[in-house]
Amino acid sequence: MTSSNPTVTVAYDALRDFIQSALVSQGLPVADALTVASLMAEADMQGSDGHGVIRLPQYIKRIRAGGINKHPQIRVVNERPGSAIVDGDNGMGHLVVSKAVDLAIEKARHCGVAWVGTRMSNHAGPASLYARKPLQHDMLGLYFAVGNANHLPPWGGTDMLLSTNPIAAAIPGADEPPVVLDMATTVAAYGKVKAKAKRGEQMPVGWMIDRQGQPLTDPTRAGEGFLLPIGDYKGYGLALVVGLLAGTLGGAAMGKDVIDFNADHVSTTNTGQAILVIDLSAFGDPAVFKHAVDKLVRDIRGSERLPGVDRIWLPGEQSHERRARYESQGIPIARGLVQELDALAKELHIAPLVQESHA
Amino acid sequence: MTSSNPTVTVAYDALRDFIQSALVSQGLPVADALTVASLMAEADMQGSDGHGVIRLPQYIKRIRAGGINKHPQIRVVNERPGSAIVDGDNGMGHLVVSKAVDLAIEKARHCGVAWVGTRMSNHAGPASLYARKPLQHDMLGLYFAVGNANHLPPWGGTDMLLSTNPIAAAIPGADEPPVVLDMATTVAAYGKVKAKAKRGEQMPVGWMIDRQGQPLTDPTRAGEGFLLPIGDYKGYGLALVVGLLAGTLGGAAMGKDVIDFNADHVSTTNTGQAILVIDLSAFGDPAVFKHAVDKLVRDIRGSERLPGVDRIWLPGEQSHERRARYESQGIPIARGLVQELDALAKELHIAPLVQESHA
Repeated sequence: MTSSNPTVTVAYDALRDFIQSALVSQGLPVADALTVASLMAEADMQGSDGHGVIRLPQYIKRIRAGGINKHPQIRVVNERPGSAIVDGDNGMGHLVVSKAVDLAIEKARHCGVAWVGTRMSNHAGPASLYARKPLQHDMLGLYFAVGNANHLPPWGGTDMLLSTNPIAAAIPGADEPPVVLDMATTVAAYGKVKAKAKRGEQMPVGWMIDRQGQPLTDPTRAGEGFLLPIGDYKGYGLALVVGLLAGTLGGAAMGKDVIDFNADHVSTTNTGQAILVIDLSAFGDPAVFKHAVDKLVRDIRGSERLPGVDRIWLPGEQSHERRARYESQGIPIARGLVQELDALAKELHIAPLVQESHA
Repeated sequence: MTSSNPTVTVAYDALRDFIQSALVSQGLPVADALTVASLMAEADMQGSDGHGVIRLPQYIKRIRAGGINKHPQIRVVNERPGSAIVDGDNGMGHLVVSKAVDLAIEKARHCGVAWVGTRMSNHAGPASLYARKPLQHDMLGLYFAVGNANHLPPWGGTDMLLSTNPIAAAIPGADEPPVVLDMATTVAAYGKVKAKAKRGEQMPVGWMIDRQGQPLTDPTRAGEGFLLPIGDYKGYGLALVVGLLAGTLGGAAMGKDVIDFNADHVSTTNTGQAILVIDLSAFGDPAVFKHAVDKLVRDIRGSERLPGVDRIWLPGEQSHERRARYESQGIPIARGLVQELDALAKELHIAPLVQESHA
């Protein structure tokens, strides 16, 4: 670790333990803190670094402000053989969604398919984490969520009524890595805008517009404009449908009821998510399906390429490679973030993530 | 009907009866022909005019060439309480998908959710027709299909391995029209390119690129290029996921196995579709949900607007208004298409759609 290196490398276990200590220091039960910490560290390990430990200071702020129930009674309500709502009682989102996914896997085993939504949940990290969980059971997952801040107006409008409402899907191959899609319904996620601002870079035309409908390329002026949806009115329609499915259907917040959790650390967010799980064995031999996925993946990878294109990637393939590399070599954390986490550790009276003697 | 009028107006019943006669003349059973004709006329009535009677000549060509099984044994296979595959035995797609939707509605009543896929199906018209069917049961529908010709390469590639694989969703309101999304995962559907060519217009940049990756704006050169997916790599990922769900999962064609049904009227297409139905009552009082949809719809419609925007539309709202207008005033059919249908009627020895004495 030298000062010329812009990142610090930490092992998954160390990252998980640090996050767990921070949460336990605020009164979360040890087992719950471990569940949340494992998922947050897993987010960093797959390269979803906008949804991993970078969120810890914000989560701690919300917990300290009373915006999170540290001892939630997470309950299953409105249950049918293939469906349910998990009421999260304003607990950490990771706990609520994990419960929903486990229940959906169990239900899909019987029904062939299951849909479990959440209400009274909170921000739970990257969508793909949850869509991937059914894979180990020879099932596929689709995940939908209402974003925790509205940055998207309806097409043609200027009122911030929609969020970047993401969709994720995870579909297993046999020998090939799973196809894992994890996408905001906007051209750029808001985190990417913030990252451009931090690096002092301009945004490309097409990410945002201002209130006159003109391209907005200065990320420091992001507050004066809106994100653009993918495919114009199509992405607006997708964001709306995802919000109706993940939010309204389960009785969670949508539209004007969505709290901006970056600005407000106290109000209950009533976040909604939904997971759809399909058991492959309900549709035939899972091995046959997975080999068909492999064949398709290889046909795609082997496609003739446009000039200047070195390689064709499958959705989730880069994240899969990163996960394997970070698992063996450690997870890179930006030095600026490490310093922020050091300050947090001091404040919480816990050991820092990185021992300074290594510096 | 004067020659200065570019369209001819026909009643829904007349259109349906004409299509039914054409299909019966080719040996389809009367009841099956009625089902197909009703759905095709309904497509025109909601303004999905690229998927209504305009497809009749092509369907007839395929039936005459032996590319459609006129007496299919449509069977339910691989059934679980909430899931199934409908094997269409190469019958008309409208029959196969109708059966799948009916079965999914029945299953969702018990399980809360149901997923029914098709294999050995065929082109079935606009996605939204099927996503809408659950609405009358206080259920919502999501529909996925593998398009019947590959026009989309993987992101960065040039091999045509993907189609415009559409997604549709229909979500009911109380007093407001349902939210109905029906979108190709490409910026433009291929039908829109053909329409531009017919009108002698150029395409906007962003619809297609050529094999060098350069914008292609001349629709008469469409064969030299590819459609672009919405949101770049995101739309590519969506098209792939939709194809895996609607095609591969059910054992239907996907990737290299997709037949271009515009060029090949004989080979079995083995088309795959899938419908997801959610029973609102499984998640609470449907009336509460539908009123929440209304509130959201009104908030969106009432949003402040960008300069120059007259009105904010909800997905499906224009189609809803058109449906009501065409139902009372008749459905406009382009004069060129009427002439084509007249020629077809003569060939099939059936009465023409429009009595020429009215001309």
